[in-house]
Order: sequence, then C-alpha cells, then structure tokens
Amino acid sequence: MLNCGLIKLKCISDEYGSLVPIEETIDIPFEIKRIYYITNVDKNATRGFHSHRKLHQLLICVNGSVKIRLKNPNEEEIVKLNDKSVGLYIGPLVWNEMFDFSEQAVLLVIASGFYDESEYIRNYDYYLNEAKKVF
Amino acid sequence: MLNCGLIKLKCISDEYGSLVPIEETIDIPFEIKRIYYITNVDKNATRGFHSHRKLHQLLICVNGSVKIRLKNPNEEEIVKLNDKSVGLYIGPLVWNEMFDFSEQAVLLVIASGFYDESEYIRNYDYYLNEAKKVF
Repeated sequence: MLNCGLIKLKCISDEYGSLVPIEETIDIPFEIKRIYYITNVDKNATRGFHSHRKLHQLLICVNGSVKIRLKNPNEEEIVKLNDKSVGLYIGPLVWNEMFDFSEQAVLLVIASGFYDESEYIRNYDYYLNEAKKVF
Repeated sequence: MLNCGLIKLKCISDEYGSLVPIEETIDIPFEIKRIYYITNVDKNATRGFHSHRKLHQLLICVNGSVKIRLKNPNEEEIVKLNDKSVGLYIGPLVWNEMFDFSEQAVLLVIASGFYDESEYIRNYDYYLNEAKKVF
C-alpha cells in the first residue's frame, strides 16, 4: 500500500534479554522529534481516525498486540502488530485506525515532527478530498 | 543524586486509553537521536554495568516494573520504575545497573546520541577514576 509499509528492526538478543535499537535517519527514514506511547486501551475501543498532512511515523507494538486499519482513497489494509522487532511506517495522507488492543498492549510511536493540530485531518470526507489529489 | 532525577511526563487519559507524549527539548532536556527498548529479561538477570561519557538518557518502564541502581563515586541509589508517566533521567558519568525486571517488563530508553562504543565506560575502576574528576 502506498506511503506505508513494514520495517524489520534489529533485535539484539542474548541471555540477558532483547534490545531493539532505532536510530534516526539510519534505522528509520526520518528524524525523531517526538515519541509517544498508547496503553490501557479497552479491547473494544478504536483510536486514531485521522491522517497527517506531513508527518512520518513508525508504530511498534512493544508488548501484546494491536491491529491497524490503513486506508487511502483506493486501498484498505489491516495490519496486525505483535512483534517488537517490526515497525509499521505510516507516511503522509494515510488514514489510520487502531483497534483490537490486547491486554497490556503498548503501542509505541516514533514521529518526525512536534505535535501540530493543524497538520491533522480528522474528517474522513475532507481526508478523501485531499488524498485524492495525491493518490 | 547528581546528574540524574525523575521527570513527570504528561499522560492524556480518557475512555480510549492513555497516551504519553515526549517531545525533544520540550518534555525532556535533550534532542532525541535514538531510542531503544529492552524486553524479555529474566527476573534474575542484571544488565547495564556501564556509564556514558556524554550521553543523556531517559528511561521509562512502559509495561511492568524494573529497578535501576545508580552510582557515582560518592552516592548510590536504587530507583524502582513502574509508572508509564515517570521517566528517569540519567546524565553523563552516572554508573547504572538494571535488575528485577517483572514479567512482560518493557524498558524504553530515549537517548541524546547515536550508538558510539567509544563513549561507554564499562570497567568500574576506570569509571571511578574518570568520575572522581567530575563529582
């Protein structure tokens, strides 16, 4: 699907556990300005319902599992994240929804920009309008 | 204790779960170049046993709990991390060890620099020698 895809991350494992390192512009195709993590989501709740005009993000489920619904005007896909060493890259103008959070799920997101509400598109009709010019 | 301390992070909670955002130079006192996360650590294992010459880091236990032993030539302290909205800042020349990882513990670390082995001090005697000049 355009403007998104899975990225396999390094995972350094030994008898002392596992470590996944992510360096900006090396392991991911953007600089890190912000991170956030989402926890305590009820299994029946769905979050997201927006797209970004400019932001690049990498989503990693670092504990448990979660499903991500991705849409553009022409395609729709559901990706299940349940591997700490796999990140889902989401680029500009991809609509996303997050659901089916497992118990103790932790969704970590690495973002290329600071929080900027004007950069969000939260109305799906507006989204389609803008995204149709690009896709 | 010098060069380290706890930072209370914002936590945005509603019926759709909790979100903790961390923006570089705003919520933490440094730029983000790298993140890493540590998982699957046996409850009897201890990791770390090093200090950094220049690196600034923030440690957050985003699931479960873990203890961090901090040392400098004059002080020693053990901090238990078990709150997703509290980060432990560790600055240069603080010796650290991580232990007592709970089941499904996930320790997220935000770092101010790229990985650079020459910037580590892994021998405790060498560490004391360097750190005594500073503390």
